[in-house]
Amino acid sequence: MVRIALDAMGGDHAPLAPVAGAVRAARAWGYEIQLVGREADVRAALRQQGDLTGVEHLLHIVHAPEVIEMGEHPAAAVRAKRHSSMAVAIDLVKKAGADAFVSAGNTGGVLATALLGLRRIEGITSERPALAAQLPTLKGTCIMLDIGANVDVKPEWLAQFALMGSIYAEIALGKQRPSVATLSNGEEEGKGNATLTDAIPLIRNMPIHYVGNIEGKDVTAGIVDVAVVDGFAGNIFLKGAEGVVATVTELLRQELTRNPLRAALALALRPAFRGLRRRLSYEEYGGVPLLGVNGVCIVAHGRSTPYAMQNAIRAGARCVELRLVERIRERLAAVAALSSSP
Amino acid sequence: MVRIALDAMGGDHAPLAPVAGAVRAARAWGYEIQLVGREADVRAALRQQGDLTGVEHLLHIVHAPEVIEMGEHPAAAVRAKRHSSMAVAIDLVKKAGADAFVSAGNTGGVLATALLGLRRIEGITSERPALAAQLPTLKGTCIMLDIGANVDVKPEWLAQFALMGSIYAEIALGKQRPSVATLSNGEEEGKGNATLTDAIPLIRNMPIHYVGNIEGKDVTAGIVDVAVVDGFAGNIFLKGAEGVVATVTELLRQELTRNPLRAALALALRPAFRGLRRRLSYEEYGGVPLLGVNGVCIVAHGRSTPYAMQNAIRAGARCVELRLVERIRERLAAVAALSSSP
Repeated sequence: MVRIALDAMGGDHAPLAPVAGAVRAARAWGYEIQLVGREADVRAALRQQGDLTGVEHLLHIVHAPEVIEMGEHPAAAVRAKRHSSMAVAIDLVKKAGADAFVSAGNTGGVLATALLGLRRIEGITSERPALAAQLPTLKGTCIMLDIGANVDVKPEWLAQFALMGSIYAEIALGKQRPSVATLSNGEEEGKGNATLTDAIPLIRNMPIHYVGNIEGKDVTAGIVDVAVVDGFAGNIFLKGAEGVVATVTELLRQELTRNPLRAALALALRPAFRGLRRRLSYEEYGGVPLLGVNGVCIVAHGRSTPYAMQNAIRAGARCVELRLVERIRERLAAVAALSSSP
Repeated sequence: MVRIALDAMGGDHAPLAPVAGAVRAARAWGYEIQLVGREADVRAALRQQGDLTGVEHLLHIVHAPEVIEMGEHPAAAVRAKRHSSMAVAIDLVKKAGADAFVSAGNTGGVLATALLGLRRIEGITSERPALAAQLPTLKGTCIMLDIGANVDVKPEWLAQFALMGSIYAEIALGKQRPSVATLSNGEEEGKGNATLTDAIPLIRNMPIHYVGNIEGKDVTAGIVDVAVVDGFAGNIFLKGAEGVVATVTELLRQELTRNPLRAALALALRPAFRGLRRRLSYEEYGGVPLLGVNGVCIVAHGRSTPYAMQNAIRAGARCVELRLVERIRERLAAVAALSSSP
């Protein structure tokens, strides 16, 4: 049985959304979930969930007196608050048999706490774990990493991101041999900045299905399963894509309400617009992993709803069941053995 | 009277689209336009434009025997084809009194030819000129540079991009004091990769209205007039944004044709969807400048229509009339004088 240490205080709608998500996840899949946070707050949130018959034994409150707020400076907050819900939950993973950590809290705080508590997987050399996103595309889902944890990268880190992204795609997308591309300023061989062009020979040595460079437009076209990029360009891409969706949606809304006839027709088409919104939503996959840290850590969106939290917990459990961390460790060791053999 | 040297062979629809755009621009604004390309081809395209009464004296064919094709490797093509339409047109700007160069051809070819023929503006140190894009936003237009010419940048180059972007925004957007931001992985001071954080003090010394960092989502929200970024992340952002628009449009189309009722309603809403498409179109501004090269050079989209070419020619003429190159030279000289004064 998978046991999840959940940061019940993380996210814009905490503790209600994480607690509600936990109740749903326990009911749907039978996970054991430790709700970590201020006991009184968590208990109150739990009381609002209605009848807990059948899942009560799966939900445990673990008290943590402090909270790292969404707006706080991560490094300072992590240093100052040794008993935050994040720190206590990570400790459960480290020492008390929890299998995975899930939080919708301050991403920088999650990164720092997880790294401090769990350290890196042997062989991982990047300064921080990589953050992976799952993007909706025309053909399904594309996993992109890094999306902001490492803004100045080394070639070796990009190669490790490629390997970890491929393994995560096996788990999250259920693909046997996910296609992995590097995101660049052109498809042609040789396109890219200096770090990327230095990384490509290292990526070619990884035991993955590397298909070369892709351009920004190819990501949402869905031509590959995994897109590898440094955290600076990746973050700009990802937030840019969110911004474009918001802008196109708003421009469409303006056009559709320009006169009463249009507004009436648009009203009748609301199911279609809802369908579009659902296909662009982050809620389905709920959360994304920190890759490279020595334990399963899932970061959910700060605005996560109960449904998104439920899916984030599910994402964490899948990583445990399908041995994400062990697979990364084994594959890295195999690469190291190969490259050190004569 | 502004005189434009037009690459009549550049673009997917050449020579028809450039020649048709030239006829329209001559008729609309009285520009004198040199149509540079294979004489027989250009003459044939001109014959298809119908009655040229009133503009015939403004249009001149200048023969160039070679063409740099869209798919060619730029550096090799520029070396091999000394008498390409691009090279001959740039020569007209350099030696024969043409005021501006306009092309919808191979962007790398335009960059290399322009740099070789016209050199940099005194004081500009970037390896290549910066390519600026004009992006539609919720509140108007955002100018972004660099979008791909310089993928490995130095801090000083980013500062020069900021200055040139500000001057171009004065011209293209008609703003007195355009707001200039750096595109980064977070708004907070200190966010950014090493090159960007090193560039920010230099940008603060520029005589521009610098407002700090913005994130990817802020670009199309339209909160600033100019966004400065290296050509690697800028290219990934820009093509990513194009891809997201295409993907959202396609997903919307799928939702709107899911059943006959929806399809009928959507048909009635076609004017609204056309309105959206127009607001996302590149055709209105037609082309973007190469900034830093010692002469006005406008690069139009490879898929340019006659209307887009007309507007690209107009963009070039505006840069001449409003002294783009001279303003950059003067402002750079003033910065240099300030920083060298005791």
